[in-house]
Amino acid sequence: FTSKLPAVGTTIFTTMSQLAAQTGAINLSQGFPDFDGPEALREALARHVAAGHNQYAPMAGLPALREQIAMKIERLYGRNVSADSEVTVTPGATQAIFCAIQALIHPGDEAIVFDPCYDSYDPSVTLAGGRCIHVPLAQASFAIDWQRLEAALSSRTRLIVLNTPHNPSGALISRDELDRLAALIRDRDIYIVSDEVYEHLVFDGRQHASVLAHDELYARAFVVSSFGKTYHVTGWKTGYVVAPPALSAELRKVHQYVSFCGVTPLQCALADFMAACPEHVSELPAFYQAKRDLFCDLLAGSRFTFTRTPGTYFQLADYSAIRPNWDDVAMAQWLTREHGVAAIPVSVFSERPDPAQRLVRFCFAKREDTLRQAAEKLSAI
Amino acid sequence: FTSKLPAVGTTIFTTMSQLAAQTGAINLSQGFPDFDGPEALREALARHVAAGHNQYAPMAGLPALREQIAMKIERLYGRNVSADSEVTVTPGATQAIFCAIQALIHPGDEAIVFDPCYDSYDPSVTLAGGRCIHVPLAQASFAIDWQRLEAALSSRTRLIVLNTPHNPSGALISRDELDRLAALIRDRDIYIVSDEVYEHLVFDGRQHASVLAHDELYARAFVVSSFGKTYHVTGWKTGYVVAPPALSAELRKVHQYVSFCGVTPLQCALADFMAACPEHVSELPAFYQAKRDLFCDLLAGSRFTFTRTPGTYFQLADYSAIRPNWDDVAMAQWLTREHGVAAIPVSVFSERPDPAQRLVRFCFAKREDTLRQAAEKLSAI
Ligand SMILES: CSCCC(=O)C(=O)O
Ligand SMILES: CSCCC(=O)C(=O)O
Repeated sequence: FTSKLPAVGTTIFTTMSQLAAQTGAINLSQGFPDFDGPEALREALARHVAAGHNQYAPMAGLPALREQIAMKIERLYGRNVSADSEVTVTPGATQAIFCAIQALIHPGDEAIVFDPCYDSYDPSVTLAGGRCIHVPLAQASFAIDWQRLEAALSSRTRLIVLNTPHNPSGALISRDELDRLAALIRDRDIYIVSDEVYEHLVFDGRQHASVLAHDELYARAFVVSSFGKTYHVTGWKTGYVVAPPALSAELRKVHQYVSFCGVTPLQCALADFMAACPEHVSELPAFYQAKRDLFCDLLAGSRFTFTRTPGTYFQLADYSAIRPNWDDVAMAQWLTREHGVAAIPVSVFSERPDPAQRLVRFCFAKREDTLRQAAEKLSAI
Repeated sequence: FTSKLPAVGTTIFTTMSQLAAQTGAINLSQGFPDFDGPEALREALARHVAAGHNQYAPMAGLPALREQIAMKIERLYGRNVSADSEVTVTPGATQAIFCAIQALIHPGDEAIVFDPCYDSYDPSVTLAGGRCIHVPLAQASFAIDWQRLEAALSSRTRLIVLNTPHNPSGALISRDELDRLAALIRDRDIYIVSDEVYEHLVFDGRQHASVLAHDELYARAFVVSSFGKTYHVTGWKTGYVVAPPALSAELRKVHQYVSFCGVTPLQCALADFMAACPEHVSELPAFYQAKRDLFCDLLAGSRFTFTRTPGTYFQLADYSAIRPNWDDVAMAQWLTREHGVAAIPVSVFSERPDPAQRLVRFCFAKREDTLRQAAEKLSAI
């Protein structure tokens, strides 16, 4: 039996969450909240399940939910997308990314990803018969390194995967960078998958520059987001893709055979909640910024060094002052086993991690008491 | 933009369900019930959502649910499978099939499917870079045609997709046929994907011969089933795959990047319900047989001819006496538009449908009043 993914093991998220469970460590590794989604959202689910909305949803998603998504996009990014032909609901953002990549990548095609990156991009390209070219982001800033990007382009490049706000660093791509990217690919047959699952988690008054707000890039883009991240219900595994009609049509061909449709009562509940509480998304920056600041304030006296993350619910921390010669994996395991706080080693997000990098990622989507307990343990090191 | 699936349009299920909605026809096309899942199951979901079980499930599925699946398999098929290493929960059976095919098929490989067949198999093989060889089943009986199967085998054959009970015909593969298949592939590098989503819907005292009960075949098989079909909640999109540990390991590598995991509260609810009501599955044959018999009794005086289906919740009907020269698609559309009953044309399930075939498929997973109204309309033709 020849493996299709010989290089792949268990994802770091499973590995670290399991280690946290085994050791009883506070789990700041995998990106999920330890508090619950809005009560009105959970009640809406119970209502729809009781009302018998338990059979297949339409393939592209519940129309009422796609309408809400289109209205949100108009409100936030000024783009008028068609709920009918440009919005597709998927069983999770990971699957949205997978399907977009499957729809785009033909055998022999190349896709560019920026390291460090979420670990599903590369295997998704591989399964489509393509090859992933890993372009490192600039050190410390995690900005696009234009020289390296241009050097990585070839006649086979067909896709560039963007991720903003960026997991694991929180870095944001600026509007100027989107312009520069558009100019770079203008005369090439290159498409964009833009992973914007943390679109609402942007701090200190910054703005998220969405590909949805960029006419030229959107014309060749699949933009992905996640209800799980936005509504604190990662276990609901519901996301969506927005793309121009011709691209959406190809995406849906794949989606209809990968899963056919998403879960009906979840889509009903999300549609109700979005209609009733459009303000939820605008409250998110302050909500998560307070958690970031609490965690960072508590860690200020520790031997970790860090710059407050501009976006996402992840905080990177440099541990050079604690274990200057250890790699990120050893450090994350040691933190989990010996200090009771599970983290994600940043090196696993890169094909060729910088050997000088000394970074772990903490998820601060946690209750205040969790963050206090974790910070106390981390400050004692 | 070159399509990955140039031959693919919208699935017949979407097309017919939409036409039914537009025309107000009774929808006996797409396979879903018009009644609800068990109240205890729906209440369990509401309970788990309220209890805050709304974050990521483990990648392979909730352990309690995998345990219940393993116990059911032991009870029904006498096989002791490991919940830990042989059972994987997926967001729907369609996705289970997709992931199994992705894990198996390398570019250039061939997969054999038996026509008529569920429409996701072929595009899933195509997306994996393989080629689907369509082998027609015997006419009328829908049994495997061994001569044609043997003629279709080549050195590139890597997979045979089984489906029992068979959609759309309801035909069952016998234990003897499984033996014969095992002998046929014994010295070849061929694997099995066995789509058994209707495993519990077997009538007139017949037994479902599961690949799970066949040691030699199971050793190289992925066996797929569906909670949506079994618990009358197709919109919950939750299914599973059972495969030996080495095959499950490869399947999970794909699954973890296609979706990462299924929906947590649904898995919690299903685990509770399976533990509380193991008898549900043994009550299903009588429950659906009564619906089949009601529908068939009511159609007995019509101009449709049929043999009562041995399994699934689909009844084929021959319309030769009504429109001897029409094809199945024209007939299904006419039934929907002019007679108010939506059906599935059987020809679309075959690469090269027999031009003499005159068959439509009716779904009888419907309330008694729905079946009565539909049969009345169909009997008036
Ligand atoms: C699907 S598990 C990964 C969750 C996540 O987005 C992260 O931790 O980076
Ligand atoms: C995923 S829609 C198809 C439902 C079904 O199994 C059928 O109607 O055959």
